[in-house]
Amino acid sequence: MKAYVYVSLKKSVLDPQGKTIHGALRKMGYRGIDDLRQGKYFEIALDSGVTREAAQAEVERIAREVLTNPVIEEYSFTIEG
Amino acid sequence: MKAYVYVSLKKSVLDPQGKTIHGALRKMGYRGIDDLRQGKYFEIALDSGVTREAAQAEVERIAREVLTNPVIEEYSFTIEG
Repeated sequence: MKAYVYVSLKKSVLDPQGKTIHGALRKMGYRGIDDLRQGKYFEIALDSGVTREAAQAEVERIAREVLTNPVIEEYSFTIEG
Repeated sequence: MKAYVYVSLKKSVLDPQGKTIHGALRKMGYRGIDDLRQGKYFEIALDSGVTREAAQAEVERIAREVLTNPVIEEYSFTIEG
């Protein structure tokens, strides 16, 4: 079973790294991009002995308490397999 | 239309950052995690005037030529909306 956790800056928080990449792409001639924001993602391989419900709860807790800074970031996650 | 590009280290490349997070989680008492790898993701808002086919090609090119270091990284992407 695999979990994918996506952590991104809250919409209300400026993303200078994303802005820089956006600006660079524009200078390089790439058109058609309105906005670009960068985030992190985590690919977590879960032990096969874990039930889906336990995995759901564990990954949610890890995402909330460890991987995300709740002041400026938000997270989402999916569990597959 | 939105594109999501995921960039991760190739499986053959060591991921010390992921290893560190994995070790920290274990020390904190989180069980049931076999492996953890960290990657980046990019949320790209596309101009509404762009067709899906053009967006597909453009995002693929951006992912390959700008966002990914082909020596150590690989990418995938999805387009939604």
